[in-house]
Amino acid sequence: MNKKYNVAVVGATGLVGRTMIKILEERNFPINNIKLLASKRSVGTKINYLDNEVAVEELNDNSFENIDIALFSAGNYVSENFAPVAVASNCIVIDNGSFWRLKPDVPLVVPEVNPERIKEHKGIIANPNCSTIQFVIPLYALQKKFGLKRVVASTYQAISGAGQAGLNKFHNEIQDKNTRTFSIFNNIVFHPNADTCFTNEEVKMFNETRKILSQQDLKLAITCVRLPIENSHSISANIELSMPANIEEVRNVLKKQSGIVVADDLANGVYPTPQMSNGRDEVFVGRIRQDDSAENGIYLWITADNLRKGAATNAIQIAEKLINKK
Amino acid sequence: MNKKYNVAVVGATGLVGRTMIKILEERNFPINNIKLLASKRSVGTKINYLDNEVAVEELNDNSFENIDIALFSAGNYVSENFAPVAVASNCIVIDNGSFWRLKPDVPLVVPEVNPERIKEHKGIIANPNCSTIQFVIPLYALQKKFGLKRVVASTYQAISGAGQAGLNKFHNEIQDKNTRTFSIFNNIVFHPNADTCFTNEEVKMFNETRKILSQQDLKLAITCVRLPIENSHSISANIELSMPANIEEVRNVLKKQSGIVVADDLANGVYPTPQMSNGRDEVFVGRIRQDDSAENGIYLWITADNLRKGAATNAIQIAEKLINKK
Repeated sequence: MNKKYNVAVVGATGLVGRTMIKILEERNFPINNIKLLASKRSVGTKINYLDNEVAVEELNDNSFENIDIALFSAGNYVSENFAPVAVASNCIVIDNGSFWRLKPDVPLVVPEVNPERIKEHKGIIANPNCSTIQFVIPLYALQKKFGLKRVVASTYQAISGAGQAGLNKFHNEIQDKNTRTFSIFNNIVFHPNADTCFTNEEVKMFNETRKILSQQDLKLAITCVRLPIENSHSISANIELSMPANIEEVRNVLKKQSGIVVADDLANGVYPTPQMSNGRDEVFVGRIRQDDSAENGIYLWITADNLRKGAATNAIQIAEKLINKK
Repeated sequence: MNKKYNVAVVGATGLVGRTMIKILEERNFPINNIKLLASKRSVGTKINYLDNEVAVEELNDNSFENIDIALFSAGNYVSENFAPVAVASNCIVIDNGSFWRLKPDVPLVVPEVNPERIKEHKGIIANPNCSTIQFVIPLYALQKKFGLKRVVASTYQAISGAGQAGLNKFHNEIQDKNTRTFSIFNNIVFHPNADTCFTNEEVKMFNETRKILSQQDLKLAITCVRLPIENSHSISANIELSMPANIEEVRNVLKKQSGIVVADDLANGVYPTPQMSNGRDEVFVGRIRQDDSAENGIYLWITADNLRKGAATNAIQIAEKLINKK
């Protein structure tokens, strides 16, 4: 009989936490017992898991006794303070926050790209930033076949990346014109700044992309913005490969890459859109074009569901690889 | 006494046409008589100009008798067929469509960039594409001072660029969830294709940028998308200059350029947004950063009101230069 696991979801009432619970169900993850953890104010909330109503419990130092795997998505304070508590209870943490991602002894994993890193974990495995996940899968496919020199990317990120509070704000602004001033409706905003020049989202994409692709010399230029779209991030990318490649070769390499759906027929109006990727677990790639302004240049347009492949699905795919390797 | 002109607005009931009328008022353009022209189905519509109600008349072969200047924004069919009619009546046409823009003997003008071209006209002066206008003003400032080698740009274009019909569709979709499938609400779409690889908007930006900047060897990589935002286009640009420039020099060059407002203080949340540029006639530039992934690389983020500076204001600024040169 296959082993079943005791799984905790930390931050179970948040947008990513709820998506994690849904995806554990959908993928029939082998669960013996599920524990839903959150802060004190969520205690008493009940969330359906399969045919059961599960009561949310308060996260505390004893939460991880007898838990095999904990999926964290409750902010960096919780990740920093409670991931070590979980590890001390022999629980393996898959953390969706940014706190652990760049630590040298923490694997930062996209299962289609660097699954071999999972076994190096010392209790914590980090789930990358949402926009980074969808960025590195096509880049990895191209890196393997042609090598990568430089990538210029501009993102088109959805509001769900800012959590339920962000979505609520957007919905209020749609309904009430008076709340629209200096806001997200009919507007484009940047993420908070990391320094005087770059936003924290841009810095995450620089660092995490290089770590996941194991290419510290990869030249990157990244601009990240938030749009008034509920869900699914998009990326416009101009890539300089290390060797010549014609567009048919590039398209075939991307088609063969696990985790990618190529949607690329502009003349018939077929290209990746947020509406195409919403609710899906693959990364959609299209607008594959030669960029003759650079040596070995190509263009890509990439969309993915940021709550699913950009967060919850990727974390659970890591968990699946983890238990299959045990 | 200063001369006053008889001015016709062709396409007077459209989104750009109505903006042209508003801007003629705002700028106190020296008008003797204004004539509002449109297709048959708009005849009888009345539009206010200053304190008068002006009845829209049907465009026909006699429309331009005694007209000095005609501002066209009624689609390419009208531009192609009626601009020569106007010219034959000794009327000077400033055309907002794409039909005449690339003709060798038609000046394509952004007054902050190449006003000297206006005097070369043979009756028709072309107003560039909306996203091109806001793109070339900062590029021109940098070209003069440092030279330009390559620009990678991704646009974030508003729905008003698709006219009143586009805006109506968006408003319907906000109100009625049932109309949202395969649409612009919560979505990102591309413009119609020009060939199998590029959209017509991308092709316009390639060709018009090079013509306006008089630099046919400028390397360009452009991706154009339409977002669910009512008004003001944005552009994320990565620029390779021909010589080294530090960011303070770049910022000063942009600050000194007529037509530009620099809004660049990320740490205090100051950067160009659609909400900042709506209703304004300047081009807003910010997120000015060194791009160390390229030799002499910089980043810019550019926004402008596409109905005003991207269309109506630019056309009327051309008309102002034209009459001042007479």
